[in-house]
Amino acid sequence: MLGNLGPAIQRSVIQQLKNRPKLIVMDTMNFWMETAWDDLLDTLKLIDVLVINDSEARQLSGEYSIVKGAKKIIQMGPKCVVIKKGEHGAMLFSQDNIFSAPALPIDEVFDPTGAGDTFAGGFIGHLARTGDLSFENMKTAVIVGSSLASFCVEKFGLERMKTVTQDEIKNRMLQFFKLANFETYA
Amino acid sequence: MLGNLGPAIQRSVIQQLKNRPKLIVMDTMNFWMETAWDDLLDTLKLIDVLVINDSEARQLSGEYSIVKGAKKIIQMGPKCVVIKKGEHGAMLFSQDNIFSAPALPIDEVFDPTGAGDTFAGGFIGHLARTGDLSFENMKTAVIVGSSLASFCVEKFGLERMKTVTQDEIKNRMLQFFKLANFETYA
Repeated sequence: MLGNLGPAIQRSVIQQLKNRPKLIVMDTMNFWMETAWDDLLDTLKLIDVLVINDSEARQLSGEYSIVKGAKKIIQMGPKCVVIKKGEHGAMLFSQDNIFSAPALPIDEVFDPTGAGDTFAGGFIGHLARTGDLSFENMKTAVIVGSSLASFCVEKFGLERMKTVTQDEIKNRMLQFFKLANFETYA
Repeated sequence: MLGNLGPAIQRSVIQQLKNRPKLIVMDTMNFWMETAWDDLLDTLKLIDVLVINDSEARQLSGEYSIVKGAKKIIQMGPKCVVIKKGEHGAMLFSQDNIFSAPALPIDEVFDPTGAGDTFAGGFIGHLARTGDLSFENMKTAVIVGSSLASFCVEKFGLERMKTVTQDEIKNRMLQFFKLANFETYA
């Protein structure tokens, strides 16, 4: 998991690895698009999953449509892209598949600090724990990330993350499940 | 299904029914909030499900948060409220449950005319056909409405609705299913 640092540093981290991991996830932001464009494009070629928010996806792809933007970003290197849309949830795109995850409907966000990093940590944490890199399991990973991020915003900074339990996380996963899953018709 | 007419006319339609239907769904819009507020509040007390868009939900409830707004609207009379969020999908609220439906990720909308009415028709059509008014089945009804609306926007006006087949609708339902459903973790 390449945290949001300069893309040249991210690339250097990849190049220092003796064995390439099965999955490299990268976070980035508008700042690097404005100050380190060429390095960013170079590093994107080396990674598997890019995690960004909707405005960053628009800036990176030059497309207003998230769907068109995701297609363009996949052409830049990553096999998958996760686009976080705040209160509108998150979307996961691969070449052939799309997953749309809802946001937990909450009345108020207490403090969004750290929500993006918590999401990314939950996402790669689930994939690392299960070792299953299928699109189906990446869907679940997006929900794990969303669940953890939904705890993060409940208190200041990472305060809530220090006390959250496995049971609470499982319950929140179930909440997401009820929120999003439906039966198709016969 | 009370189409989007003046709320006094909608109320008069309800009052002319000898037997109250099991489910009354109502559409309305900002115009009636501005010109017929008292009638609107009166009629809301007589119906079961209100279908509106996100900006109308904000206007009706006076709440910016969709979640808070939906809670307030349910206090005004309807047992359920469906809030359409365009490219961000739709949400269904009851007193105790929430469902978040995605929008179909499409590159471009050709013409949105009629999408809202098509959504409402698909929603109540599914409920009428199945006779099942549970929250679980209302979730499916929201997806039926979303599927039909996704065809509607593909061509001008209702042109596409004249040619759409049951097989096409079933396939699109499956697309929504793959888009939204995920497995929770063990």
